Amino acid sequence: MEQLLVIKIGGNIIDDDAALKAFLNDFASIPAKKILVHGGGKVATELSGKLGVQTRMAEGRRITDEDTIRIVTMTYAGWINKSITSKLQSAGCNAIGLCGMDGMIIPAIKRPVKEIDYGWVGDIEADKVNAKFLSQLLESNFTPVIAPVTSNKEGNLLNVNADTIAQVLAQALSEFYNTTLIYCFEKKGLLMDVNDPASVIGEVNYTFAQDLKQRKIIADGMIPKIDNAFNAIQNGVQSVVIGHAKFIKNIASGEKGYGTYLKK
Amino acid sequence: MEQLLVIKIGGNIIDDDAALKAFLNDFASIPAKKILVHGGGKVATELSGKLGVQTRMAEGRRITDEDTIRIVTMTYAGWINKSITSKLQSAGCNAIGLCGMDGMIIPAIKRPVKEIDYGWVGDIEADKVNAKFLSQLLESNFTPVIAPVTSNKEGNLLNVNADTIAQVLAQALSEFYNTTLIYCFEKKGLLMDVNDPASVIGEVNYTFAQDLKQRKIIADGMIPKIDNAFNAIQNGVQSVVIGHAKFIKNIASGEKGYGTYLKK
Repeated sequence: MEQLLVIKIGGNIIDDDAALKAFLNDFASIPAKKILVHGGGKVATELSGKLGVQTRMAEGRRITDEDTIRIVTMTYAGWINKSITSKLQSAGCNAIGLCGMDGMIIPAIKRPVKEIDYGWVGDIEADKVNAKFLSQLLESNFTPVIAPVTSNKEGNLLNVNADTIAQVLAQALSEFYNTTLIYCFEKKGLLMDVNDPASVIGEVNYTFAQDLKQRKIIADGMIPKIDNAFNAIQNGVQSVVIGHAKFIKNIASGEKGYGTYLKK
Repeated sequence: MEQLLVIKIGGNIIDDDAALKAFLNDFASIPAKKILVHGGGKVATELSGKLGVQTRMAEGRRITDEDTIRIVTMTYAGWINKSITSKLQSAGCNAIGLCGMDGMIIPAIKRPVKEIDYGWVGDIEADKVNAKFLSQLLESNFTPVIAPVTSNKEGNLLNVNADTIAQVLAQALSEFYNTTLIYCFEKKGLLMDVNDPASVIGEVNYTFAQDLKQRKIIADGMIPKIDNAFNAIQNGVQSVVIGHAKFIKNIASGEKGYGTYLKK
């Protein structure tokens, strides 16, 4: 099977104009088939502030009320998605900006209310992802650029976690491609010592990951990322790489010494 | 050739939640292949107001500065496009929301500065429209929903007139389909007497249109609409209909007595 890279670019890079521009130029030059999933960064929070819409959090997560889903859709699906798509087009990459409801690529349900009502937040119906349509776009040499917004069957807009979208798409597309999932952020990978940026762990298998969790080397926000990654590997994805956005070309070409490789 | 309807829905309908919902349900039920092009309505102006961004006009047209193209992209490409797409999906229509830069469907250049600098406004390169990709989507039973935003080769976002997009798409797709262009707004068609909403003119050919212009029955903002329409008819579009959004089902089925038909 042909190779496919599903690349997630995080908020910190999106907030940095120069870093984003450099990343998009590098991304455009990757010869392999690829999909870009982007997060939101601070743009939504900034716009909320200007509009006097309060950002409410519960257990570290954003509560998405009526005003917030509107702001999220405007910034993620509108400004960020179309800016990225335009810049990729100008760099010679035939990008097409999409959200989950476009052709119902990523169906979701509104997250059920338990202790906390997260509002207009979606849980992806992973078994219903329209991987066939994405593969048709890829075969026609389009590069899908996906914003973390979708809708449910009732037509309500829903905010979805971008890491999860990347994972679910990589899994679904492993039916058609030899798929690698790459999480790009502002660190070089999983660090053995959080104070030493050079202490990147080259390769981690499931057993080693559990060990690193017990030793609190994998902690906080990294735990769900790593759990998601091994979930993807259990479900058909070849490997997951966590690395710095500025080395995306090296990572994409499989060059040794860049990023942390998660494998069975 | 199979029939294709290119339907433009105007700002006044978009600003009216109940009217928009009714229109989208009707639109979804049309059995023919179709494309929806939408304008922006007052949402962008309202957001500009809330953010303290001044709306500057020159000769009745909006000047699109840096802040304004950002607001236009957020509202048209983000909020309106994705809301419409979600609602169509929930009504059983396999909609896919796109802008001009997505797959470079609608290439444009920044409008050259002459007496007035319109800012980030685009002039469509009509001969470079990617009609083939749109026809592939239509053949796969997708319904494209197009927002009036695109970009130039340099990756700058540009605001484009939605009427013109509808016209240019209808022309380009007449290579593959028997194409009808429908402009939906809040009147029943061209009126012989502007004070009598029942005085709809049933059919207008080019000669009659020139006569109506001289008699000021076609005046003001209707002049470019009519000129665009005959331009489309000269370039392969079968017919152009101007009518009320609430009669879209009747117009789409070619029922007599609804809207004004423009023909060679």
